Amino acid sequence: MPHIPSHFEHSVQFFIQLAVILVTCRLVGMVARRFGQPQVVGEMIAGVALGPSLFGLLAPSWQQALFPKIMMVGETAVPHPLMTVIYCTAQIGLAMYMFLVGLEFRTDLLVQRARSAASVSLAGILAPFVLGCLVAWGFHENPALFKAEVKLHEDMLFLGAAMSITAFPMLARIIYERGLTGTSLGTLALAAGSIDDALAWCVLAIVLASFGGSWAIAVVAIGGGTVYAIVTMTLGRRMLAPLGAWTERDNDLPPRRLAVVLVLLMLAAWYTDKIGIYAVFGAFILGLAMPRGLFADLLQRKMEPLVTNFLLPMFFVYSGLNTQVTLIDTPMLWAVAILILGAACAGKGVACYLAARLNGEPNQDALAVGALMNARGLMELIILNIGRERGIVTPTLFAIMVIMAIVTTLIATPLFEFVYGRHARRTGRVGSVATQ
Amino acid sequence: MPHIPSHFEHSVQFFIQLAVILVTCRLVGMVARRFGQPQVVGEMIAGVALGPSLFGLLAPSWQQALFPKIMMVGETAVPHPLMTVIYCTAQIGLAMYMFLVGLEFRTDLLVQRARSAASVSLAGILAPFVLGCLVAWGFHENPALFKAEVKLHEDMLFLGAAMSITAFPMLARIIYERGLTGTSLGTLALAAGSIDDALAWCVLAIVLASFGGSWAIAVVAIGGGTVYAIVTMTLGRRMLAPLGAWTERDNDLPPRRLAVVLVLLMLAAWYTDKIGIYAVFGAFILGLAMPRGLFADLLQRKMEPLVTNFLLPMFFVYSGLNTQVTLIDTPMLWAVAILILGAACAGKGVACYLAARLNGEPNQDALAVGALMNARGLMELIILNIGRERGIVTPTLFAIMVIMAIVTTLIATPLFEFVYGRHARRTGRVGSVATQ
Repeated sequence: MPHIPSHFEHSVQFFIQLAVILVTCRLVGMVARRFGQPQVVGEMIAGVALGPSLFGLLAPSWQQALFPKIMMVGETAVPHPLMTVIYCTAQIGLAMYMFLVGLEFRTDLLVQRARSAASVSLAGILAPFVLGCLVAWGFHENPALFKAEVKLHEDMLFLGAAMSITAFPMLARIIYERGLTGTSLGTLALAAGSIDDALAWCVLAIVLASFGGSWAIAVVAIGGGTVYAIVTMTLGRRMLAPLGAWTERDNDLPPRRLAVVLVLLMLAAWYTDKIGIYAVFGAFILGLAMPRGLFADLLQRKMEPLVTNFLLPMFFVYSGLNTQVTLIDTPMLWAVAILILGAACAGKGVACYLAARLNGEPNQDALAVGALMNARGLMELIILNIGRERGIVTPTLFAIMVIMAIVTTLIATPLFEFVYGRHARRTGRVGSVATQ
Repeated sequence: MPHIPSHFEHSVQFFIQLAVILVTCRLVGMVARRFGQPQVVGEMIAGVALGPSLFGLLAPSWQQALFPKIMMVGETAVPHPLMTVIYCTAQIGLAMYMFLVGLEFRTDLLVQRARSAASVSLAGILAPFVLGCLVAWGFHENPALFKAEVKLHEDMLFLGAAMSITAFPMLARIIYERGLTGTSLGTLALAAGSIDDALAWCVLAIVLASFGGSWAIAVVAIGGGTVYAIVTMTLGRRMLAPLGAWTERDNDLPPRRLAVVLVLLMLAAWYTDKIGIYAVFGAFILGLAMPRGLFADLLQRKMEPLVTNFLLPMFFVYSGLNTQVTLIDTPMLWAVAILILGAACAGKGVACYLAARLNGEPNQDALAVGALMNARGLMELIILNIGRERGIVTPTLFAIMVIMAIVTTLIATPLFEFVYGRHARRTGRVGSVATQ
């Protein structure tokens, strides 16, 4: 009879895992902030550092003892229950975080700068999408990068979507924190960023649906997702409105009202996961449909601290535990990594800059928009992990894409500061950008 | 090759489990509040209702599909990973909750009413402890109630400690919410309740240590626990003080400071779990040692909403999933249940009332103190679950004790309202008591 650890033994180890995760995220985040980087950069790097790419290289037996990936039951290897715990907690954190992103989202900005926003976002999605498709087409035969059983058009669609991602929540927070929300630049960046992310998620939904094999699955995903989005934004929005009115009346958000929101969030996450377009999508739309004003403010204030400081770091670590940079072990693979990084920057940053310039935006604004749109941040990790779970990307391509995500996020803030910093600094609004 | 669900499949089911858990806790909680009961009563009953005692009776296959307890790996049954997820999340919630209880705790009240408090708390721990020991002694030979391999003195010590528990957080919240904090009654109840709970936890630590088999384990547990408590309350308290000063200076609790607290909390939970006196103890002491004032207020405001409304309900459900009331299936067992309930009320409620009267407290105050001290609440479920995990109590005795915990909690508020309600009502301070 093999020894199978009890729930209690697991929970003791979970506490120490959490301590290590939180300490590492904070320490790397501190170093990142010292260099003017947002917290997300620190957490992306911390996640990778705790995985096989650094901790696992330096002290493989310690790493496996702290974060075991499999458990033996007799002769059978099963996923380690603690990985399930980390994964499930990370999913909760991700759903809550995307809900908060939706809650902060201001749809009215979309309308104000429609023309510029349309062309910047179109450029920012078409160019990287095409470049992503080309890369997939060129390297489709390489077994280190693409699985033989995945069809060419699926690889192309997935890589295209993955290249088109923008770290919209991070972009939004930088704009808000620099006090640029009402400005020309701020409105344009927010509008273009949100359109791009929405489109990239739609493409992802199509890819995942087509990847399901049968068109019945695709219809469920796309149809179910569309119906969900429409119903939530119309009927749902109207039914949720009283929550806002009651909160204004009471000048308070009592526990029972928070509980209603949490239940709806769990149901939205479950439903969108179930139909195959993922919980992050359902959570974001639900956040969009929530009443604004005091209700949204209080909800944010009650949920945000534990979500960003406790639950979300687990997603970065789960992702990092599956990132094995050492798989990029030939000059050829490093060349591919540099090519993908170049294509990502050219397709997103440069294309957005050019589109903004062609629309008559000043050079400084266009550069700033390009730098912000280019950052992939947390959003890229989400799409990559979905691709990895569904068996679309190989571990090697996953590692290459994670590096791309980190580098594009890493260069965004210095670039933005360089072209826009003086102006923002002069008005005394440059603070620490601590967001995802 | 058996099908082993992926992390993703687990997480989808976890979302629906969470939705059901939160809905049930809220609905039962609403009914409970309609009858003037605190939220904790609703959640205790909701947890039991989702387990084999109600949901599992009405729709066994649905219950097992929603909350599977085991997973087959080939021929071997292993604990279902989702139970590990619920357990680990519940432990996090419990540790955070006990930390918040410690954070709210006011040690200065202990001193003010030392004499009355000492006799009430002494009566409130000695009487139920002796009665608990007697019950264990009387029924030690009954295999439905006590395991043959557990020694008599261990059974006696455990049942004694379990009978002596007071729902201190609930008592404190009732006192605070009725605005009785500064009053004679409030001070007495808070002081006596806190002494009792502290003593009961110490007894539990001794029981668990002796249950470890070797005295080395007992020395580690008691010695390690004592050293932890002393170091945390002296050196730790002094080292934590700057957190409070910085927060007053900044008039804000930035994420990095929250992260420091969370890391310390995880380490405290891990350490006290590891030495065998359980995370709840370590978390409570850490909360006690934290600076007060703005720091404690902001910490409470940032952590409390998700802890009490999202994480803590999972503990009630985990406990309820292990509570099988149908095991009490003979008149003899029901007689034992009634005997234990009677002993619990006589030992705690009546003894505290008499001790208060003997100390010259007015009849009304003495009755109110007795009613409040008699409630077992969440604290009882914690100690019972520890006993169950360590194999001290049988499932039948566990179910009997859960019923005792629910009934004593259920009668506390009406009794308190009856003897003290008019007075509190007259001053307009009777609100909804929503706490654990």
